Amino acid sequence: MTIKAVVFDAYGTLYDIQSVAAVTDQAFPGYGEIITQIWRMKQLEYTWLRSLMRRYEDFSVITRESLAYTLRCLGLKNDPGVFEEIMYKYLHLDLYPDAMASLEAMKDRKLAILSNGSTDMLNALVRNSQLDRVLDATISIDSKRIFKPSPEAYTLIEAKLGVSPAEILFVSSNPFDACGAKAFGLNVAWIERITTDAMAQAFAKSDLVPPLTMFKAIRMQMDELGLEPDYRIKKLADLPGLLQSLN
Amino acid sequence: MTIKAVVFDAYGTLYDIQSVAAVTDQAFPGYGEIITQIWRMKQLEYTWLRSLMRRYEDFSVITRESLAYTLRCLGLKNDPGVFEEIMYKYLHLDLYPDAMASLEAMKDRKLAILSNGSTDMLNALVRNSQLDRVLDATISIDSKRIFKPSPEAYTLIEAKLGVSPAEILFVSSNPFDACGAKAFGLNVAWIERITTDAMAQAFAKSDLVPPLTMFKAIRMQMDELGLEPDYRIKKLADLPGLLQSLN
Repeated sequence: MTIKAVVFDAYGTLYDIQSVAAVTDQAFPGYGEIITQIWRMKQLEYTWLRSLMRRYEDFSVITRESLAYTLRCLGLKNDPGVFEEIMYKYLHLDLYPDAMASLEAMKDRKLAILSNGSTDMLNALVRNSQLDRVLDATISIDSKRIFKPSPEAYTLIEAKLGVSPAEILFVSSNPFDACGAKAFGLNVAWIERITTDAMAQAFAKSDLVPPLTMFKAIRMQMDELGLEPDYRIKKLADLPGLLQSLN
Repeated sequence: MTIKAVVFDAYGTLYDIQSVAAVTDQAFPGYGEIITQIWRMKQLEYTWLRSLMRRYEDFSVITRESLAYTLRCLGLKNDPGVFEEIMYKYLHLDLYPDAMASLEAMKDRKLAILSNGSTDMLNALVRNSQLDRVLDATISIDSKRIFKPSPEAYTLIEAKLGVSPAEILFVSSNPFDACGAKAFGLNVAWIERITTDAMAQAFAKSDLVPPLTMFKAIRMQMDELGLEPDYRIKKLADLPGLLQSLN
């Protein structure tokens, strides 16, 4: 198999969305991580619901609306200054520690991002993290006005890179995204950052399960959608080795 | 305004999906309610994801797959006998206590269900709860092979009942469904079973929030999707009065 392009999901895959927690916890002590978990869950829900209702709004709007929902649910004050501070951090998310080195080790292939993020958000994020130095393209689903896992979203890779699906390796830690890419016909590596065993053990400790553990469990385990990723890896640093083994 | 038909969502609106907890808690002591909450969340997610991926499977398949996911996440044994016992209860859900009397009080209008449920599941549910005595139609989205909140789902009401959207009152406790019906152009009454204030107070009690409270909060609060239901009611029993006030 010849992989000519490696294409990454952004949020949760290259960028640690939990890194917002530093800012949300400063704004709302004790609520930092709970905010990021509810926020993320509703953010994804809204991408799917707006896609199905054919009421597309770009990811920056959805990100703001899901944050507003989260603060309301938690009974927290929605102060405009604090709100903008949190949103600012979303354009300055931390890369996973192994992201830059892993991408640099695969520079013999085309490297790109395909993300739900709006063009503006992604460009800021990539520039702020200096990932623009190693990426050949940053592709937003914006132009299709429908979010992943809709097949239209994944068609953008071939359109932008000129590489056919059979020669693309798509990398995501988000189970729904790995399934969507697989359903579309890409080769897929899913990053399993939390194993099922580790998760089950955390649950077994108590019947009043800490909500953060539960939220992560729900988002991070492979879904039951009749689809399986081609490869399961634990971290981005496993990718260069995987690619070599495929040649 | 003349409302000629009142159309209800089924799961969570007429039928208390939490009533499965009696069975899940017997099967997995201490985990009963946690199972129902994760199960419901993934069940909805899978309807949206399969709709977007154009990989439709009917609601009975999705309900089984989301239950399998839930047991795996929680590290619980998936015993075939127990699994079928839980699924059996899903065809025998309890009506909300005020459901039957409320529907009987509105028998001068056409009364129907529009649900994500498969035709077989809905027919069993309606028969087992004797709701067939008061309903003029039980409509499954099955024939459209796409789930709510897709507009195609809501077109089925006019097609089956011969009543135009302006003369329909759609009733749901599920925020995404109330929004989907509103986006489509129906009159919408949303049942707000848990108020935002009650939810915020529950969260405020602890920074390690019990997960059930959190799950319910996330599902039961009105979403930030740029859409508002026409009417907010607290329970099904409020409907006959609302209808009278509209005449």
